[in-house]
Amino acid sequence: MTKKIDPIRPTDDEAREMARLLVAEAHYGALAVLEPETGMPLVSRIAVGTDADDQVISLASDLSFHSKALAANDRASILIGEPGKGDPLAHPRVTLIGRMKRLDNASPERAGLRETWLKQHPKAQLYVDFADFHFYRLKLERAHLNGGFGKAYVLKPNDFSQR
Amino acid sequence: MTKKIDPIRPTDDEAREMARLLVAEAHYGALAVLEPETGMPLVSRIAVGTDADDQVISLASDLSFHSKALAANDRASILIGEPGKGDPLAHPRVTLIGRMKRLDNASPERAGLRETWLKQHPKAQLYVDFADFHFYRLKLERAHLNGGFGKAYVLKPNDFSQR
Repeated sequence: MTKKIDPIRPTDDEAREMARLLVAEAHYGALAVLEPETGMPLVSRIAVGTDADDQVISLASDLSFHSKALAANDRASILIGEPGKGDPLAHPRVTLIGRMKRLDNASPERAGLRETWLKQHPKAQLYVDFADFHFYRLKLERAHLNGGFGKAYVLKPNDFSQR
Repeated sequence: MTKKIDPIRPTDDEAREMARLLVAEAHYGALAVLEPETGMPLVSRIAVGTDADDQVISLASDLSFHSKALAANDRASILIGEPGKGDPLAHPRVTLIGRMKRLDNASPERAGLRETWLKQHPKAQLYVDFADFHFYRLKLERAHLNGGFGKAYVLKPNDFSQR
């Protein structure tokens, strides 16, 4: 017998603030993409940061499975939020859903992103300028926030905007 | 210009041991599934454990987005491995790729899985017997192991078997 429950709560300012904080503090995440050859959903770890407009960015090698997948289909989602002690499902996390757009290394935007990225990821200095590394920006369409058991929300891009 | 490099190393015993350890020590992971309505790759956090045969299992509510997705299409992958300090891409992780099979709660297997699960996840005692929670077992097809920069491997199910 299926329970007749809508598990999604109405979005409020507490949920918006929690989601914004998770994104602002993220240094890595789990990226889901579609494998071109098989259509399988593939998840892998990526480094995560934010640009000057608080949009989620990443830096990835063209040699990675996820970069090859994104070159064929930019549909993606990113899970952000690190579990602490105790039940991993009791800790807040957010799934950002949208399109991962690759930035050409010749783009005039790159210098600014590079500087922002290196502030957030100083160790990336070692490889940020390798020719096979590119920046990506998530074009956010919606998000699933889970603040712990029974605290599920569906957010829109403007829920992440600063008030 | 694309570099002519195969970034995948030949699988050796060190890689097999690393992958086995990551799975054995996992308490949670990031699950990628296909959203039924849109075909988008969706990633979310799940609790992870292993059964008596070292197969990956999980316990999830039917109310979750991922359970609904798996009911429509059991294709999935699970990212396992927790980053420590420093660059998150320098820490080992493995992506397990296959099918997530839901176990009926009336199955004679359930009692054994329940006992195993509660040893690995004692806090799940609070909800393991709720009617909307079900066990899942990953039918592994292959895996991507990343042992840190430049240490990528593609593994088969028998690479996870005990020697």
